[in-house]
Amino acid sequence: MDDIIFGKNSVLEALENQEREINKILISNSVHTDGKIARIKELCKNQGVIFQFVAKEKFTQYNEYNHQGVIAQVSPIKYTELEDFLSKEHHNSSVVMLDGVEDAHNLGAIIRTCVCAGVEAVIIPARRSVQVNSVVEKTSAGAINHIQIIKVNSPVSALQQMQEHNWWVIAAEANAKDNYYDVNYTDMNFVLVMGAEHAGVSKSIIKLSDFQIKIPMLRDFNSLNVSNALSAIIFETVRQKCIKKDK
Amino acid sequence: MDDIIFGKNSVLEALENQEREINKILISNSVHTDGKIARIKELCKNQGVIFQFVAKEKFTQYNEYNHQGVIAQVSPIKYTELEDFLSKEHHNSSVVMLDGVEDAHNLGAIIRTCVCAGVEAVIIPARRSVQVNSVVEKTSAGAINHIQIIKVNSPVSALQQMQEHNWWVIAAEANAKDNYYDVNYTDMNFVLVMGAEHAGVSKSIIKLSDFQIKIPMLRDFNSLNVSNALSAIIFETVRQKCIKKDK
Repeated sequence: MDDIIFGKNSVLEALENQEREINKILISNSVHTDGKIARIKELCKNQGVIFQFVAKEKFTQYNEYNHQGVIAQVSPIKYTELEDFLSKEHHNSSVVMLDGVEDAHNLGAIIRTCVCAGVEAVIIPARRSVQVNSVVEKTSAGAINHIQIIKVNSPVSALQQMQEHNWWVIAAEANAKDNYYDVNYTDMNFVLVMGAEHAGVSKSIIKLSDFQIKIPMLRDFNSLNVSNALSAIIFETVRQKCIKKDK
Repeated sequence: MDDIIFGKNSVLEALENQEREINKILISNSVHTDGKIARIKELCKNQGVIFQFVAKEKFTQYNEYNHQGVIAQVSPIKYTELEDFLSKEHHNSSVVMLDGVEDAHNLGAIIRTCVCAGVEAVIIPARRSVQVNSVVEKTSAGAINHIQIIKVNSPVSALQQMQEHNWWVIAAEANAKDNYYDVNYTDMNFVLVMGAEHAGVSKSIIKLSDFQIKIPMLRDFNSLNVSNALSAIIFETVRQKCIKKDK
């Protein structure tokens, strides 16, 4: 339970001193909105922290703690701000964005693969996405401390912002025309967007993307696990970079 | 509990009628060796089924069943015999062998990746390896039914047998000289051997292998998860085959 803060006062304090990153605040539907709850909601809005009202049954698992119907899920790591990231110099750099990946083991495996492949940052949405928690940290085998994690409220705006900074947006999409190895990754900053296993990358992202790529399947079988699909694509970018360097 | 058979008579019957594949038979240390136990051991030896004596505490979880200190772990699938596999015609075919992979989720993810990449069979050792169980079946997302699984008692003998049938043995090895993309995979039958995450491929296999390959790492970070490493390599073989076909 190292990454949960229980009770109105503790959650309020966490919001006020901003020393630890908050993934999400959950408030029980049965809680009466007093001054503290109102203040929590206000601070959440100001700081862009997600808060959700949930059924009081969700809190049953925490009954041994004095939660008062309010908990904050805290991140074990410090997130990087997209603005800070973009303000730095980047050269033939790669970033991975996950659009709707909800499984903590997948996120951990993806972070681990990204570190090995020299990816600079992983971008995750604040909503409808797994957040960095202790399961992710463990599955990443420590990799989480070797890469920047950026959390964004709007994936679409984030990608547009990156495009304004001359980053190319590449969407992995099962029905794309181009194969992933048809793109030359060696001479650009790019952000590769991987979708949720069933839904894929959302339409609004595909629409704004500069490239859409697919992995050719040698058998007619539904689809790859997202972390394995990412591995195939990202190591193709590594292959191209290594070959270019060796020339 | 669909894949466990409990009790002397039921286990004996399963061994005698051979209708279901047995992954392993566990016998409690506290069990008195009577005629049935002796017969079980004899049949195991004849059929190459692994049996292990384990502490009686291992059976506590099964106490609601009448296990009599003997259980058989049964496979949800039918394994293919290596001899049968090799007796068929193969052309530019690929097989993956796992050497010491013990995690069921990894095996499931690997099987799924292999099916997408057109791999014909996955070889697992009967000892010191995860077996195909219901967790593997579930993680594979149904892929388990689209590929042949071969179980072998000796990985080294199996590879030698494959070499005699003109299969090339490729070992993934972190300290190899060649990168995985330096090999031409388009004109041979090959078996790619992936090792356990920490131990890697065993020395005896590396010694007999025809190629040793590594994945170059762009950051100095320990290592990839085995299913992600496999994905990078196996989709490079797919890339080469697709490019050759398109020419």
